[in-house]
Amino acid sequence: MKKSLRICIITHTLTENPNRDYSLGSFAELFGCAKSSVSEDIKVVREAIETEGLGYLETTSGSRGGVRFVPYLSAENVAKVLQELKAAFEEPSRVLGSGFLYTSDIMFSPSLIKGAARIFAKRFASCEAELVVTVETKGIGVALLTADLLNLPLAVIRRESKVSEGSTISINYFSGSADRIQQMSISKKGITPGSKVLIIDDFMRGGGSIIGIKNMLKEFDARSVGTGVVVVAGGVEHKKVSDFVPLLVLHEEEDGGHHFGINENLLSY
Amino acid sequence: MKKSLRICIITHTLTENPNRDYSLGSFAELFGCAKSSVSEDIKVVREAIETEGLGYLETTSGSRGGVRFVPYLSAENVAKVLQELKAAFEEPSRVLGSGFLYTSDIMFSPSLIKGAARIFAKRFASCEAELVVTVETKGIGVALLTADLLNLPLAVIRRESKVSEGSTISINYFSGSADRIQQMSISKKGITPGSKVLIIDDFMRGGGSIIGIKNMLKEFDARSVGTGVVVVAGGVEHKKVSDFVPLLVLHEEEDGGHHFGINENLLSY
Repeated sequence: MKKSLRICIITHTLTENPNRDYSLGSFAELFGCAKSSVSEDIKVVREAIETEGLGYLETTSGSRGGVRFVPYLSAENVAKVLQELKAAFEEPSRVLGSGFLYTSDIMFSPSLIKGAARIFAKRFASCEAELVVTVETKGIGVALLTADLLNLPLAVIRRESKVSEGSTISINYFSGSADRIQQMSISKKGITPGSKVLIIDDFMRGGGSIIGIKNMLKEFDARSVGTGVVVVAGGVEHKKVSDFVPLLVLHEEEDGGHHFGINENLLSY
Repeated sequence: MKKSLRICIITHTLTENPNRDYSLGSFAELFGCAKSSVSEDIKVVREAIETEGLGYLETTSGSRGGVRFVPYLSAENVAKVLQELKAAFEEPSRVLGSGFLYTSDIMFSPSLIKGAARIFAKRFASCEAELVVTVETKGIGVALLTADLLNLPLAVIRRESKVSEGSTISINYFSGSADRIQQMSISKKGITPGSKVLIIDDFMRGGGSIIGIKNMLKEFDARSVGTGVVVVAGGVEHKKVSDFVPLLVLHEEEDGGHHFGINENLLSY
């Protein structure tokens, strides 16, 4: 097979399957060529991917030598994603009569949340999470794409326990947004005891549901090693949690206006 | 920029953004090269992608000429994905005391549902859908990935109406699985009136919730142009819907055993 075909196939295989290891031998076998040729091909792929600013390749040497695609965003690409998200959230048509913002379409827009997931995957690349957890419903999209980029499973905590979940653990928590006690529930099979967990959610106001998730994790002797939220409401001074990474900060004005600020910290690392 | 770098970048850009059009001019500008060179590069990328059996390139000619990656799976790759799914569903540890099967981890496993989404994207490539719709919760992952592959937005119907959804439309439907009347609800902003809709869900028994979604679509003068479900329970003879595409068929035996059959029709087109 020609070198140019080989590098296309390597590029596609690695980038479609982020953070999964591929051995040089498996490519050599697929192409019917020497490992040394694959090694040369990978040099080209590495240069191309680094030029794009969307990721890099990590290689391990030795007889079991392999390669993986690690998604990444240059600061310039992070800024671009955040500006796109900000513009989407600030569309005037989202303001509902109730003063709430309609955001479901954004949270389930593959194009928009792919970018958000790439930022989380970059930010939490080194947190050593073994599982991504979210609570239904609107954060599921971004949590799933983040899990895919980090090659982790996703567990979704439900609002109600379902018969198809088997034995479940349920906890109660106080939701400031809803101004009442709410319940969340997950199958005993949902979280491996002792896991390190990355929490991803769409929106945080007081932090009640994040606290709920953390209390749920305790039931499994699991613990969070990072928390990412797409939007945090800036108006609540005393959050119940402090260690979280928002992409955007929502400023609600007294006249009912909404503005979104970008989390500038994400641009400088 | 060297030809080998250009073809890597074109491969990554197109495959990461399926069914989105890219003009030759935009690549030429990015690379600082002639459109004719880009055109030569694309020939190489096309050959590589067709060799893989994971998609193909569609090009339009003329001054606004462009190119897009259309995901596809060869019959061999479809069979591989279906076998992987079948094996996952048939793990003995999934059988719950209640006789139900625990499937949440599969439905939110990025690796497993990517394959399912690719099969749906292939099967429904020509249905001209403008929107993918699912009902929460377990089908959201596969619906989202299918929407991404087809470059369509996703709308998620909720079980309860939420204040953050604004004015909603709610309907009642009879769920055979739950043996009771249930409600589903979506924001009036959720579905564009008159849309052609692809319905994707994780599981179908009698078809009640698919009927519910179809009745919901009528409220928007929208209509379904296709229905895909990951698993259909084979035991219910009289489904309420007939035009649906399952990936797997669940056979429940009298002694409580479960077996999954592959939808063989998916292998022969």
